Amino acid sequence: EPCVAALARVERTDFLSPVCIGEVAHVSAEITYTSKHSVEVQVNVLSENILTGAKKVTNKATLWYVPLSLKNVNKVVEVPPIQYARKEQEDEGRKRYEEQKLDRLETKQRNGDVIFPVINPDRQTKEPHTVGYSQSSLIHLLGPSDCTLLGFVHGGVTMKLMDEVAGIVAARHCKTNIVTASVDAINFHEKIKKGSVITISGRMTFTSNKSMEIEVFVDADPFVDEPQERYRAVSAFFTYVSLSKEGKPLPVPQLLTETEDEKRRFEEGKGRYLQTKAKRQAQMQQAAQQ
Amino acid sequence: EPCVAALARVERTDFLSPVCIGEVAHVSAEITYTSKHSVEVQVNVLSENILTGAKKVTNKATLWYVPLSLKNVNKVVEVPPIQYARKEQEDEGRKRYEEQKLDRLETKQRNGDVIFPVINPDRQTKEPHTVGYSQSSLIHLLGPSDCTLLGFVHGGVTMKLMDEVAGIVAARHCKTNIVTASVDAINFHEKIKKGSVITISGRMTFTSNKSMEIEVFVDADPFVDEPQERYRAVSAFFTYVSLSKEGKPLPVPQLLTETEDEKRRFEEGKGRYLQTKAKRQAQMQQAAQQ
Amino acid sequence: EPCVAALARVERTDFLSPVCIGEVAHVSAEITYTSKHSVEVQVNVLSENILTGAKKVTNKATLWYVPLSLKNVNKVVEVPPIQYARKEQEDEGRKRYEEQKLDRLETKQRNGDVIFPVINPDRQTKEPHTVGYSQSSLIHLLGPSDCTLLGFVHGGVTMKLMDEVAGIVAARHCKTNIVTASVDAINFHEKIKKGSVITISGRMTFTSNKSMEIEVFVDADPFVDEPQERYRAVSAFFTYVSLSKEGKPLPVPQLLTETEDEKRRFEEGKGRYLQTKAKRQAQMQQAAQQ
Repeated sequence: EPCVAALARVERTDFLSPVCIGEVAHVSAEITYTSKHSVEVQVNVLSENILTGAKKVTNKATLWYVPLSLKNVNKVVEVPPIQYARKEQEDEGRKRYEEQKLDRLETKQRNGDVIFPVINPDRQTKEPHTVGYSQSSLIHLLGPSDCTLLGFVHGGVTMKLMDEVAGIVAARHCKTNIVTASVDAINFHEKIKKGSVITISGRMTFTSNKSMEIEVFVDADPFVDEPQERYRAVSAFFTYVSLSKEGKPLPVPQLLTETEDEKRRFEEGKGRYLQTKAKRQAQMQQAAQQ
Repeated sequence: EPCVAALARVERTDFLSPVCIGEVAHVSAEITYTSKHSVEVQVNVLSENILTGAKKVTNKATLWYVPLSLKNVNKVVEVPPIQYARKEQEDEGRKRYEEQKLDRLETKQRNGDVIFPVINPDRQTKEPHTVGYSQSSLIHLLGPSDCTLLGFVHGGVTMKLMDEVAGIVAARHCKTNIVTASVDAINFHEKIKKGSVITISGRMTFTSNKSMEIEVFVDADPFVDEPQERYRAVSAFFTYVSLSKEGKPLPVPQLLTETEDEKRRFEEGKGRYLQTKAKRQAQMQQAAQQ
Repeated sequence: EPCVAALARVERTDFLSPVCIGEVAHVSAEITYTSKHSVEVQVNVLSENILTGAKKVTNKATLWYVPLSLKNVNKVVEVPPIQYARKEQEDEGRKRYEEQKLDRLETKQRNGDVIFPVINPDRQTKEPHTVGYSQSSLIHLLGPSDCTLLGFVHGGVTMKLMDEVAGIVAARHCKTNIVTASVDAINFHEKIKKGSVITISGRMTFTSNKSMEIEVFVDADPFVDEPQERYRAVSAFFTYVSLSKEGKPLPVPQLLTETEDEKRRFEEGKGRYLQTKAKRQAQMQQAAQQ
């Protein structure tokens, strides 16, 4: 049955080095796991300076796709299973599959909370370094060039706008050059149709000494043809660092939390920060032992 | 009845300050008047430097839209009336509505005149600073990315091309950096369909000591599917100023008029210039008295 | 019968001077010959610096179009004949028509050869200046904005990607600034549909003292809706020169040929190089005699 792959989730991604103008990006991908209704794809991005021949890993990303029927985009098609070279590959894949399923469920529940809209905050009345001072929104009408052949928005278009709003929040907070260090798992809860107006909102949730965590939401208003309520379509956490003019990491002004919700979100962010740090140290120890 | 809003007219707009790369543009809009078949929308554009927090008004614009039925784009749909906070708002709105209706009618009549095409003028044979020396055209095929979801050209695409051709005319005339100071009311007489070829022509009509007025026409050739005669789709007057390398206003070489028509258009342009100047002085006096 | 013109071939084109940002490009075209099923169009591109008024010929190109029925894009429509001012014009046009027909046939036969894919070469294991060291590919999904109103890719989009891959091959070979000097006839063997994935591959075939010849292929995978085998859609030879930072031509490192095929292609390239050189000298002598 002819189908199209809809992006459902991007796993946590670290940006290891920038790609410069004139460099060639080598993007390769392979399927690493299939469940009954989803496909895990591992993507590697390498940048190459074609004059010096120097190559650098830009980032590695894991993406989950769900195949939708071309005849009826609300119908999920069954995925033909892949052959694994070793039994462990299938077991590890299933473990990753279950983990992301759980995480998506949790995010969806969290999204059920009513969230105060962060549009047009009265920034003048806020103290610098508070959550309200830096929170920002972009509002974008999805035109034909934002969409796939089937008339749904490209995941890449949404992710670029999410990165832009997170960058605005980070720049408002620390008034310096800022750069994306990593993106936590991005969950695409719902498709967004051509002609929708999307609101991309970002608010700072946590700061460590040298990094900022920004929560980003994408809400869709499908106001053309069949009016329908605004819904939460995508959400993710972005981590930014502040850089000096020479490109060296700078200390980040600490986030001032005021409300109970802001304090709770700060603690949750701290949890994610410590967890990531611990994971990275474990990986480095493992690498050192090998 | 589901409908789409077609841009019918943009009122005179002054460009007060530029928006720079990396700044955030705050664009807000509200409906300020409704007639039976049209909607007046007031748009404010504010640019914000997110590092310094400085905000500047870029421009304010008033746009008139006409709702067209989605099932039949040649049918104008009735507009549900808005509620006014004060009776005077409705009266002032009706006055603006009548004024623009009259102005559109006049422009349409003026467009009835046969206008000599300004394509490929033999510039080499013309004296510098004459009308023929600087008059210019752009010719553009309207592709899918120029158009709305319904397949008619975006007003913004047309306006950008009109500004481009006016800029070319101004640069040819004074050979310096030039910048748009204001746009007189832009009238969208007719829709333009995807696949049409549009000719955007500009000719200088008037110069004051420090400004140039350029008349711009958009003519459409809807040559795909149903051949039809070329028609005047949009027209407007742009005002440009000449700037030194340091960004200071420079004196403008005076326009040399040769034909009777050129002299008549110069006088009409002078009339618009003096009228605008008088209006601005009246506003400043009013502001000083308050 | 309503129809659309599909680009079938672009004749050899020399790039005489660059167009700079802010310059106005004057593009004019006229029909110079019609056969029963094709139209020859001569295009001239002139760039104009609007501040100095200086104009330069950028390039002249001859394009062949085939009209396809709008109702059935697989049906070629008959072309109404044009009127020639002189009998010789028709005869010369017929001669050009027969020549290009022969050349397209030859290229099509050459394309029948199985060609080893040049994707992801193991560049690390190759010696500098060999064919394998510099050969490169780009892979691109054709989205809506790459295509015409009928859903086939724009010839211009394909040519831009071909020029990009040829530029990457040239830069890998000589590690300097490089610039396109000319493009040999580009043959569009087959239409490419929206939603196809195209692989644009380039390999160096010949070097003279100061120029490089790069062969470029475009292969299409029409994987959406009706799966079909990959096919060769376009092919052409690009000639590049190497420039110093001051913009002066530099000597080019000689291409090291290893296999019999590489040696054969080098000799064929040398043939094309000598033929073009001889033609140009004949034209210069003719011009000197007049």
